[in-house]
Amino acid sequence: MTATSHPLDEAVVLTLSQGPDPQGGTVIWQGQTHPGYANMVGPYGGITAAQAVQSVLQHPQLLGVPVALTINYAAALAYGPFTIHTRPVRTNRSTQHWTIEFVQNDDAGQPQTVITGTAMTAVRRDTYSSVDHPLPPVPSASTLATRRVKNAVEWLNRYDQRLVDGDIHTAWDGSEHDSQSTVWMSDEPPRPLDFVGLTGLADVFFPRIWRRRALRVPAGTVSMTVYYHADAAKLAATGSAHILGRARMHAAFNGYCDQSAVLWAPDGEVLATTHQLVYYKE
Amino acid sequence: MTATSHPLDEAVVLTLSQGPDPQGGTVIWQGQTHPGYANMVGPYGGITAAQAVQSVLQHPQLLGVPVALTINYAAALAYGPFTIHTRPVRTNRSTQHWTIEFVQNDDAGQPQTVITGTAMTAVRRDTYSSVDHPLPPVPSASTLATRRVKNAVEWLNRYDQRLVDGDIHTAWDGSEHDSQSTVWMSDEPPRPLDFVGLTGLADVFFPRIWRRRALRVPAGTVSMTVYYHADAAKLAATGSAHILGRARMHAAFNGYCDQSAVLWAPDGEVLATTHQLVYYKE
Repeated sequence: MTATSHPLDEAVVLTLSQGPDPQGGTVIWQGQTHPGYANMVGPYGGITAAQAVQSVLQHPQLLGVPVALTINYAAALAYGPFTIHTRPVRTNRSTQHWTIEFVQNDDAGQPQTVITGTAMTAVRRDTYSSVDHPLPPVPSASTLATRRVKNAVEWLNRYDQRLVDGDIHTAWDGSEHDSQSTVWMSDEPPRPLDFVGLTGLADVFFPRIWRRRALRVPAGTVSMTVYYHADAAKLAATGSAHILGRARMHAAFNGYCDQSAVLWAPDGEVLATTHQLVYYKE
Repeated sequence: MTATSHPLDEAVVLTLSQGPDPQGGTVIWQGQTHPGYANMVGPYGGITAAQAVQSVLQHPQLLGVPVALTINYAAALAYGPFTIHTRPVRTNRSTQHWTIEFVQNDDAGQPQTVITGTAMTAVRRDTYSSVDHPLPPVPSASTLATRRVKNAVEWLNRYDQRLVDGDIHTAWDGSEHDSQSTVWMSDEPPRPLDFVGLTGLADVFFPRIWRRRALRVPAGTVSMTVYYHADAAKLAATGSAHILGRARMHAAFNGYCDQSAVLWAPDGEVLATTHQLVYYKE
């Protein structure tokens, strides 16, 4: 690590602790939370997902590139060290399926699972591709101001967000609104896009329940899925440009609401679609 | 099993084989594919997902009701018996996180993982609920004819589908179209809705890539996520009425495309949102 390394690259440093296990191929990685991505309680969920995908990307038996990732936030990750248990469960000719578990000791020193997840990687072949959900007509990122949040949690400083529509409410009066937000976003400082960076960006949106009903209730992601519609070359072509994200919810029911988002490169290519289930109180 | 039992209820019969393991709580269930839900190769993916959720619902340590499920189709499930390894990885005060694995012997008699998955269950509390994606204006199910498919794979006969828009193409000429389909759907014969039935219905849509581009290329779901926006009472209130599903894709890229769908009760309540990643060839 040097003084000039990007905080995201620091955050996803994983050290080989054990493996690959000769039977199942499990690798145990040692990781740690990064103060630059601190949220209110524990780390920003997007960085945890980025660490999960990194644990797959750095596995010596990796086949292909990420196409799907699901991360479940089973318990609050505490600041400090953790291990990631990353297992290639099934390897076919051109696809590979993974299980992922983050383990952290509890107050009694007992190891506990705090994150569960699955991932799929695949060797992509050049074939038919198309976008059926075009980039909406929006002003370009360069014409919009960076969103400044007063007393922001630390991770918000790691992203440059330029709101197109659906900003967070200023009057918390319980009034109802549509849940959509559209935002140009990039790492801050800028960083060339890759699978780790894209995964972090997939969780940038503030809780949809705060848009839907103007009440700042406790809320947190309990499960997140990312579908990747890009290979390394397509991500590299985006470079450190802002990408456009549009997120909305469909339903809130008795404590849980969903979120769906599309992430576009500025040229209109869809880079990822991503979905969440979010807990909310009240 | 009696002669009058519903094929879905037959398909999700799981027999306790082992457990719960006193350490981790893993239960090993014995299940089997059902000829009534046969697809072209192996069983219909929705029934596999229904069996996965059933393995959680019948676990003696279950807390709450399903709120999220992710199933990865790591390899083709062969017709015949399999085991499901269902583990409550983390139990909190009102939430529980699960891992799920389907295991089947390969030709050499070696056990292989064919399905991986995670689920989350939760005790719901009566609180704020709302729909931010209303049921679209469509004719009621009773005014539409049941869709008949010639030479249909067997599982299609287990669902009554009444197409509103976005039917499968009749001319496979490679022309491009929007990927949306809207359909009223129910089990056939009718069956009161529950979590198992809703999970099966989440996968009913034909591959979006066949709508997007009128070419009937090989395609199959590799990962499916269901977010449940209902409790048992809300599902029971829907009874055996048709529910409305609307599905679309956002992007296809080099062999994989996504699918997102919303499932509504006829009264406009959102019952589930569901997402897939689908492999396609050519």
